[in-house]
Amino acid sequence: MSKVLLKGCEAIGEAAIRAGGIRYFAYPITPQTEVAEYMARRLPEVGGVFIQAESEVAASNMIFGAASAGVRVFTSSSSPGISLMSEALSYIATAELPAVFVNIVRNGPGLGGILPSQGDYFQATRGGGHGDYRLLVLAPSTVQETVEHVMLAFDLADKYRNPVMIIGDGLIGQMMEPVDFSAVKTTTPPDKSAWATTGCKGRKPHLIKTLFLDPNQAEQHNRKMGAKYDEMRKHEVRFEKYNMDGEYHVVIVAFGTTARVCKTAVDDLKAEGIEVGLFRPITLFPYPYEPLREIALRKETSVFLTVEMSMGQMIEDVRLGVAERKPIAFYGRQGGIVPSPEEVVDEVRKLL
Amino acid sequence: MSKVLLKGCEAIGEAAIRAGGIRYFAYPITPQTEVAEYMARRLPEVGGVFIQAESEVAASNMIFGAASAGVRVFTSSSSPGISLMSEALSYIATAELPAVFVNIVRNGPGLGGILPSQGDYFQATRGGGHGDYRLLVLAPSTVQETVEHVMLAFDLADKYRNPVMIIGDGLIGQMMEPVDFSAVKTTTPPDKSAWATTGCKGRKPHLIKTLFLDPNQAEQHNRKMGAKYDEMRKHEVRFEKYNMDGEYHVVIVAFGTTARVCKTAVDDLKAEGIEVGLFRPITLFPYPYEPLREIALRKETSVFLTVEMSMGQMIEDVRLGVAERKPIAFYGRQGGIVPSPEEVVDEVRKLL
Amino acid sequence: MSKVLLKGCEAIGEAAIRAGGIRYFAYPITPQTEVAEYMARRLPEVGGVFIQAESEVAASNMIFGAASAGVRVFTSSSSPGISLMSEALSYIATAELPAVFVNIVRNGPGLGGILPSQGDYFQATRGGGHGDYRLLVLAPSTVQETVEHVMLAFDLADKYRNPVMIIGDGLIGQMMEPVDFSAVKTTTPPDKSAWATTGCKGRKPHLIKTLFLDPNQAEQHNRKMGAKYDEMRKHEVRFEKYNMDGEYHVVIVAFGTTARVCKTAVDDLKAEGIEVGLFRPITLFPYPYEPLREIALRKETSVFLTVEMSMGQMIEDVRLGVAERKPIAFYGRQGGIVPSPEEVVDEVRKLL
Amino acid sequence: MSKVLLKGCEAIGEAAIRAGGIRYFAYPITPQTEVAEYMARRLPEVGGVFIQAESEVAASNMIFGAASAGVRVFTSSSSPGISLMSEALSYIATAELPAVFVNIVRNGPGLGGILPSQGDYFQATRGGGHGDYRLLVLAPSTVQETVEHVMLAFDLADKYRNPVMIIGDGLIGQMMEPVDFSAVKTTTPPDKSAWATTGCKGRKPHLIKTLFLDPNQAEQHNRKMGAKYDEMRKHEVRFEKYNMDGEYHVVIVAFGTTARVCKTAVDDLKAEGIEVGLFRPITLFPYPYEPLREIALRKETSVFLTVEMSMGQMIEDVRLGVAERKPIAFYGRQGGIVPSPEEVVDEVRKLL
Repeated sequence: MSKVLLKGCEAIGEAAIRAGGIRYFAYPITPQTEVAEYMARRLPEVGGVFIQAESEVAASNMIFGAASAGVRVFTSSSSPGISLMSEALSYIATAELPAVFVNIVRNGPGLGGILPSQGDYFQATRGGGHGDYRLLVLAPSTVQETVEHVMLAFDLADKYRNPVMIIGDGLIGQMMEPVDFSAVKTTTPPDKSAWATTGCKGRKPHLIKTLFLDPNQAEQHNRKMGAKYDEMRKHEVRFEKYNMDGEYHVVIVAFGTTARVCKTAVDDLKAEGIEVGLFRPITLFPYPYEPLREIALRKETSVFLTVEMSMGQMIEDVRLGVAERKPIAFYGRQGGIVPSPEEVVDEVRKLL
Repeated sequence: MSKVLLKGCEAIGEAAIRAGGIRYFAYPITPQTEVAEYMARRLPEVGGVFIQAESEVAASNMIFGAASAGVRVFTSSSSPGISLMSEALSYIATAELPAVFVNIVRNGPGLGGILPSQGDYFQATRGGGHGDYRLLVLAPSTVQETVEHVMLAFDLADKYRNPVMIIGDGLIGQMMEPVDFSAVKTTTPPDKSAWATTGCKGRKPHLIKTLFLDPNQAEQHNRKMGAKYDEMRKHEVRFEKYNMDGEYHVVIVAFGTTARVCKTAVDDLKAEGIEVGLFRPITLFPYPYEPLREIALRKETSVFLTVEMSMGQMIEDVRLGVAERKPIAFYGRQGGIVPSPEEVVDEVRKLL
Repeated sequence: MSKVLLKGCEAIGEAAIRAGGIRYFAYPITPQTEVAEYMARRLPEVGGVFIQAESEVAASNMIFGAASAGVRVFTSSSSPGISLMSEALSYIATAELPAVFVNIVRNGPGLGGILPSQGDYFQATRGGGHGDYRLLVLAPSTVQETVEHVMLAFDLADKYRNPVMIIGDGLIGQMMEPVDFSAVKTTTPPDKSAWATTGCKGRKPHLIKTLFLDPNQAEQHNRKMGAKYDEMRKHEVRFEKYNMDGEYHVVIVAFGTTARVCKTAVDDLKAEGIEVGLFRPITLFPYPYEPLREIALRKETSVFLTVEMSMGQMIEDVRLGVAERKPIAFYGRQGGIVPSPEEVVDEVRKLL
Repeated sequence: MSKVLLKGCEAIGEAAIRAGGIRYFAYPITPQTEVAEYMARRLPEVGGVFIQAESEVAASNMIFGAASAGVRVFTSSSSPGISLMSEALSYIATAELPAVFVNIVRNGPGLGGILPSQGDYFQATRGGGHGDYRLLVLAPSTVQETVEHVMLAFDLADKYRNPVMIIGDGLIGQMMEPVDFSAVKTTTPPDKSAWATTGCKGRKPHLIKTLFLDPNQAEQHNRKMGAKYDEMRKHEVRFEKYNMDGEYHVVIVAFGTTARVCKTAVDDLKAEGIEVGLFRPITLFPYPYEPLREIALRKETSVFLTVEMSMGQMIEDVRLGVAERKPIAFYGRQGGIVPSPEEVVDEVRKLL
């Protein structure tokens, strides 16, 4: 096992390259411009292509085009940039194309600032763009996990022919941590020759489209997409339970950077003899409603505490899982402020 | 009272003009290009301005600019066009500017088609763009109500200094119905001289911004916005109960065009002696969770039936209101297919 | 007679307004952003329209559109901005539409700087864009003359249905001089109802086009345009002779700001008893070849001195007029440096 | 020697590749879209890059960027597309970067049509864009010569660090002719490490710029460029004399496709015993003024006949060379009409 010390943004780039995601189209925006810088330097070395597009609108449509050709393709951006990609995201999902989108969320809304935030939760989990479609959404909480998620994202994108969104923040993107690439299996993309537009000499042309003039055909396509999302709900739910083997009454629910902070809070409380559980959704779509429901059904569970770097967005999913069986408290910070373990400990104390 | 026969799209334009919304920036897209056509013809007559922008990205930023100047301003588009406006929507909401957006939803996702759909429900109610912000969302179900909502939208936008979204579909946009403008009060915009950028000769400049470098200031601004959304939740919830005065066990939940279809289904069932209630959310944000909860708490209520022209999006809000107190069935059509009253009647029968 | 003290850029705006040119589409660029600022303030007062477009490409195509509608329309920009308008200029000329373009030339090429230059002479007089077309080009040398040229430009544009370019520089644009508007006749635009696209209710549609698929029709259109340029050559040649009534052997040729400097040089030399003539082309297209030829044919004329703020561009036109009958010396400054009268005096001395 | 039968557009692409010009940025426009098609197919095979940009403005700025990095880069377009590249052309020339531009001129101005024309002569030879700069302009008249010119263009661009323009028309671009690549030496690009922005690890950064705030520095840069154009005038003048060894009185001047037609006319006249010379400029900038002057000075020369597919643009350069020593007749066709040999023969007869 050999670890290398990497900044989160560089690790994202390197992971993508090792997963074969050597087509990268993007427009720079802090706090993740380092991904573009890394790709600009590395991609020529591995025979890849990086195009810095005129705008995020352009970059996302290049993703659309390249994904149509069956290659592993990805982009990265930050909140306002992702908004500009909304239309293309809807198109890419509808055309059933694999592609990986990384959103290093900045504190917003509007221009906001470059500090960490989780305010794009709704945008990521409810599609952002128009119409009935979903992104698979992964929320890593360490640089090592980010690397794993990037590789996983390419696989899931290929498996479901659907865009996958990785949602992080400036803390993950800018933090330096030791990364072990050997721990992560490099995957082989599946054969896409049945649908990719790779040049139709000697065969019938493939057609990638999102326009359906016949309503029956359109509904059929929507249902096909719906069935796929049901498959994801069945097979791709990922979550972590932390300190949830023993006795606990309070359950913290948090993802990404916030979950990391909450782990420290849980450890600190444990040191004082207070057992608190931490439920960390890893996939934000599909959301782990069932495990959450089971926790809510536990007699011992007295209260949930949702911690987010937002006004409260994931809490809607917590509510959907808990369904008023137990009270749900909320602690949120905004404006780029990361809640401290102490703040979380204090919130837990209030609930005890 | 004098009624005029108008197409929905024309009625939208005329209503905006009568509300003083004579600055219109847009890019044409079916099935609502008639709004632009109407404005192109009418605005010069009333001293207004219509700029057909280069794209929806441009149009929405013109809205941003004009709203900053304190004038009543609006745009209209359809699904993919609204996606392209996502970034600007986040900025406008964050800058606390009044503006009216009309989305005549087309069946999607992707390019889709021009037939009716309600697939942009998530996008409308969860912001669409990045970050913590909300739009006030109105969902009319007749041309007359659309007219009233347009006028109301300008008032609400001014009252809360927040963008308001009206969400309709091609059926409402293309349908001709008699409209009575006299029934709707024309309102006077409030004094905006305290913040609008109207030229600062002789006074301190006003600054419209969405960039907050200081995290404490950023958080404070987020909280101010949050407090405003709470005010909306308190004061602006609108809904209609139909056939819910007597005995009923099944409650249909539907909005917009779908609610209109469901009314006919309710009437048809009534004619057969079957009493079914129809709950129609008029504001989609803030959503009428409380009245829904009360209905769920009624002993007599046995089951909910959510009818949508989507895979099921509003049903999440129904779930949040009902909180597993009663089962919730779903009937959805997609691809531009409007469910018929007969289909809804059949679904109800299955539940009885 | 009442004079007002105005900056050149403001005078351009005011002159356009008084000529009825109250539709202005532009993108700001120094050293003429003050035109846009002036229009932004003044046009609302006179019922005009100013759209700040997304780019010069957009602005020039808005000019194309508005000119098609038969209204007096103009734009202003500076060198790189005019390059971005090249395509539209070719289209507008080919569609035979009246429009006024003001180029406050900055020192270039490339990004260059904002100082005065005459380096866009070729671009202005040889069309800049693709294909066989010409702009009428006016080169004022004082603010008062600029005002007169702006008004004249609207008239000539209407008369020939051709774009007219006014070429100045930062010195003229930024200089404050007393301006007498009363001295300039405000003109009435001609009736354009025979061709303008003003809405075709009750009449046959008008078609503005630059696409000619039939080569014979295309050639016919080219020849019609050619005949128009011949008319301009016959009727619109404008020039000034300064100190050319008496005895002189050396003839300076210069336009715009440079001509103004040369006048001082001529005066200074006269004070020393040296008579030097100054020939100032006022129209750069059509160029005053004939009067120049006559001067060249004078027995007394011994040498020409072309003074330009460029590497030497107008000198080609001087050569075409003089046709090697007499030697032509050149003195040019570049990089935004305006030649001083002393420098010109020195050059003349060398020739004597 | 082995010849292959190629369409002009394909030959352009192949020649570029053989010259190492494997970075191609373009936006498709007839009648030269086949270049893009060819490059799309061939470049991946040779490790090159083809980016279809959002517009010609974008493509030309990609050329700017790639040329800065020191690689051989080229684009192709047709008249309106070249107009959209005007700003970038001025920037690239000023930044002293090597790049190759191919203009397959279509009949214009405006949108025009896709038929052959020489109407972009002024644009090509007088820069097109703003400011004092020049392009080296090559005008081939056969597919074989086009191939040679493409290869030469890369060499000249590198030698002078200046953009080179190849000007052809749809006849050359669409014609199939046997091409012998072996006859053309493939060249090696010079070492560009002294200025190219190839990453500055371990050395001082290189700066590519066109902004000069200090006027003296700006003037110095202009003069450096001017000196370079003088070098071109001294060393790069290219032309062909056809049937000019014996007795002739009439001299036809024509370039490109028109020259080819005129050769047939000269041959036809020769067959009748009438000797007519044909002078074909191969470089349009620098223009072969001197050889033309010498021909004008010949006692036997009685008249020039300039033949162009335009209203008459090159004739200005003929006039500059001939300087009224002999009369110059003009025969021009427009609208995409190629003059026939018979028409040229008729024109010559009129002059005899």
